[in-house]
Amino acid sequence: MTPAGTLFGIGLGPGAADLLTLRAARLIGAARVIAYPALAGGESFARSIAAGLIPPTAQEIVIDLPMTTDRAPAQAAYDRGAATMAAALDSGEDVLVLCEGDPLFYGSFMYLLARLRDRYRVEIVPGVTSVSACSAVAARPLAARNETVTILPGPLPDADLARHLRAADAVVVMKVGRHLPRLRALIAAEGHLPRAIYVERATLGSERILPLSDAPAEAPYFSMILIAKGADPWL
Amino acid sequence: MTPAGTLFGIGLGPGAADLLTLRAARLIGAARVIAYPALAGGESFARSIAAGLIPPTAQEIVIDLPMTTDRAPAQAAYDRGAATMAAALDSGEDVLVLCEGDPLFYGSFMYLLARLRDRYRVEIVPGVTSVSACSAVAARPLAARNETVTILPGPLPDADLARHLRAADAVVVMKVGRHLPRLRALIAAEGHLPRAIYVERATLGSERILPLSDAPAEAPYFSMILIAKGADPWL
Repeated sequence: MTPAGTLFGIGLGPGAADLLTLRAARLIGAARVIAYPALAGGESFARSIAAGLIPPTAQEIVIDLPMTTDRAPAQAAYDRGAATMAAALDSGEDVLVLCEGDPLFYGSFMYLLARLRDRYRVEIVPGVTSVSACSAVAARPLAARNETVTILPGPLPDADLARHLRAADAVVVMKVGRHLPRLRALIAAEGHLPRAIYVERATLGSERILPLSDAPAEAPYFSMILIAKGADPWL
Repeated sequence: MTPAGTLFGIGLGPGAADLLTLRAARLIGAARVIAYPALAGGESFARSIAAGLIPPTAQEIVIDLPMTTDRAPAQAAYDRGAATMAAALDSGEDVLVLCEGDPLFYGSFMYLLARLRDRYRVEIVPGVTSVSACSAVAARPLAARNETVTILPGPLPDADLARHLRAADAVVVMKVGRHLPRLRALIAAEGHLPRAIYVERATLGSERILPLSDAPAEAPYFSMILIAKGADPWL
């Protein structure tokens, strides 16, 4: 009997093709089966980051996610994707899941991991997160010494956001998108507007870095807000 | 007049030599001047990660940090290092600062950045953080959907740690080291011991991953605790 393959979760970093790790590049370059999510039949952002490295002979398993916040259709898509991946793993092939950023930091990889981890060997290749990418393009230190950092998804209710904004020394708001006007109003009300930085599409060619007060009214999904308190705490 | 060089902050990732990014590897391989911190004349962990890539002809600027928590001697060391780096930058050379993990996430790079950013062009290459490395080796998702994540330095007082432990959906405690017994007692008192994972030297050959309840009495500086609440929130 052929031993089963290994399930790999491969972090691809925030978007620039050369922010993949050497390990991710080596594994993808030798891949025979890759898998990645794509939204409603559209192009996969994960695949586009790694495109230059994928062997033309590789089998590609597309996990076609529906455009809805409803969980059941997405769960069905992950079930189907996991079944196709399991067939490849059972035949002895390794399966590499391409993941934007880091596989275990707000990624869709964990839904596949939950379905396959008990049956197959798993290896995760960590990646550069969008949080690190944003602080890099803004050239803005996130935290020093004994400071705390909190990562906040923008869709959270105002009361939760305000509570965390008060408690942490540095805050990164992710998934800003259509929540930008509400987030800006909240951050202003909490007195943090002067030090809030808006970053859009970090490390992609089209990136923008602005004071939050100058941010556009409409933000893409791939946008973030960085707030590091303290005048200049890292001197 | 020769135009001044660029100051680079280069993230090297958590420790494994192949968790550098392609960009970091390319820049280091072509470097003429590199700089890195070393503690009290000892070996530099940052330099050891990149050792296989550093050209033998590169000039190396060592920022020799004193073994003390007192700030003044460290500030003097950064002043001296920044002055040596400024001389190289003024002569037109780029200077690459080698940084463990990510340059702007609890690194010493920010102290050099603060001293040089107004005079020189700066470019930051983000890196894989030890947080991502720990969740990868533990194969443990950190956050999904609208969950919050808080990064806590272990030396913080118990009351601060407890407050953040209660507020966040996932918590990563960094800089565990000699604080391990106190942290374990606190995490147990807060009811999170069953889901707390201890990770030591993630991605280095000598890594260890254990339930926090089984962690050794003495932990090295490069150790962390991961706590993701919720039974299995990513299914």
